[in-house]
Amino acid sequence: MIKYQQIAAEIDKHIKENALQQGDKLPVLEALMAYFNVSKSTITKALALLEKKGVIFQVRGSGIFVRRQKRKGYRGLLSNQGFKKDFEGVHLTSKVIELEVMKPTKEAAHNLNIGLDNDIYYVKRVRYMNGQTLCLEESYYNKSVVTYLNKEIVSESIFDYIQKGLGVKIGFSDVYLHAGKLKHEEAKHLCLESEAPAFYVETIFHLTNGQPFDFSKVTYHYEQSQFFVQTNSHFS
Amino acid sequence: MIKYQQIAAEIDKHIKENALQQGDKLPVLEALMAYFNVSKSTITKALALLEKKGVIFQVRGSGIFVRRQKRKGYRGLLSNQGFKKDFEGVHLTSKVIELEVMKPTKEAAHNLNIGLDNDIYYVKRVRYMNGQTLCLEESYYNKSVVTYLNKEIVSESIFDYIQKGLGVKIGFSDVYLHAGKLKHEEAKHLCLESEAPAFYVETIFHLTNGQPFDFSKVTYHYEQSQFFVQTNSHFS
Repeated sequence: MIKYQQIAAEIDKHIKENALQQGDKLPVLEALMAYFNVSKSTITKALALLEKKGVIFQVRGSGIFVRRQKRKGYRGLLSNQGFKKDFEGVHLTSKVIELEVMKPTKEAAHNLNIGLDNDIYYVKRVRYMNGQTLCLEESYYNKSVVTYLNKEIVSESIFDYIQKGLGVKIGFSDVYLHAGKLKHEEAKHLCLESEAPAFYVETIFHLTNGQPFDFSKVTYHYEQSQFFVQTNSHFS
Repeated sequence: MIKYQQIAAEIDKHIKENALQQGDKLPVLEALMAYFNVSKSTITKALALLEKKGVIFQVRGSGIFVRRQKRKGYRGLLSNQGFKKDFEGVHLTSKVIELEVMKPTKEAAHNLNIGLDNDIYYVKRVRYMNGQTLCLEESYYNKSVVTYLNKEIVSESIFDYIQKGLGVKIGFSDVYLHAGKLKHEEAKHLCLESEAPAFYVETIFHLTNGQPFDFSKVTYHYEQSQFFVQTNSHFS
């Protein structure tokens, strides 16, 4: 980590450990500079990072304030680290239904930006949160990037493995959400009746160089589908 | 607009007008400096803004690339400008069901961070996209911020009015999504059967100083609920 990232992490930790609430005021810029013994530009970069992550907001002429999610049980949509990280503190398990090397579907090939004759790993899992059915997940990994998977790996955190084991550098992702009615087969896996509400999240994960490597379709149990997004005024 | 914001807007316009696609390469930093005749730090700031907005991605040692949403018909979740802006190019209409000054519900008071004896504007509308039922919207506005509304205003874009008419400065927002089954009254307004899938989006809009001023609960017709989010590698 670079210095400003370290400082951002320390401020983040401070906010969490002291259970600061949205609107709580942080020390002024000069005090932070003195405390961390760094230049104004380093603190400014650290604060910009925290603002981008939705941890603080800055009010010109007034100060730096804490920003916090108010509701429990909602999963952040902007995280990019796979489930395990998103669901810290809950017990997450998986039942692997299918794992195989195959040619991509047309849809997967399109989203992964590869040809229909390329190899992919197809992984189908049902995931459970503290024993409750959370979602049905189908993932298509470009095999030229994710070169190896086995049943043991896909029973645990695939993202953990591909980052640490395969050295894959995960960049940005595109997330599409929509609602619908469960198809018979989806309903079966989620222990719901057909036509029950379905909350679909499709994600295209890219490498830092922009190449898509994972197209993932997740169907959530509607009672478990709670998501949270923070927006910044920069988007206006 | 400050210089770097102007340049960001120009690059954004260039990408859209030329229909550049995700992965298309933009000129290198030095070429952009020369073209806009500005310093490296100005271009760097413009590019950082575009990256934050999901318009480009930068690959160290490789260049600057276009980032674009691939699918049509999905609404960006990170926009903060109200519906009218999000749905540019579609014909959006509203039917006002209720507009009144009242005391907040417990839930609204909590989310607006006000007391139960404060006044709010309550607005209930059904919104239509090209004539199709899009959503049922209930909004609670803190009346000490949104001091005046009338039927004419709430038939159009409320956000447009409160920004231009009342001079309200809109800051960040917190967005909560969940799924469920439509209650009888919601179903009626959306012309769907009870228990049909419901896609709920609750948003707490804040002023730039962090004060919440609008708590909005929107129930989407499930066939119209398509949303899009771009994440950045910064979140990892």
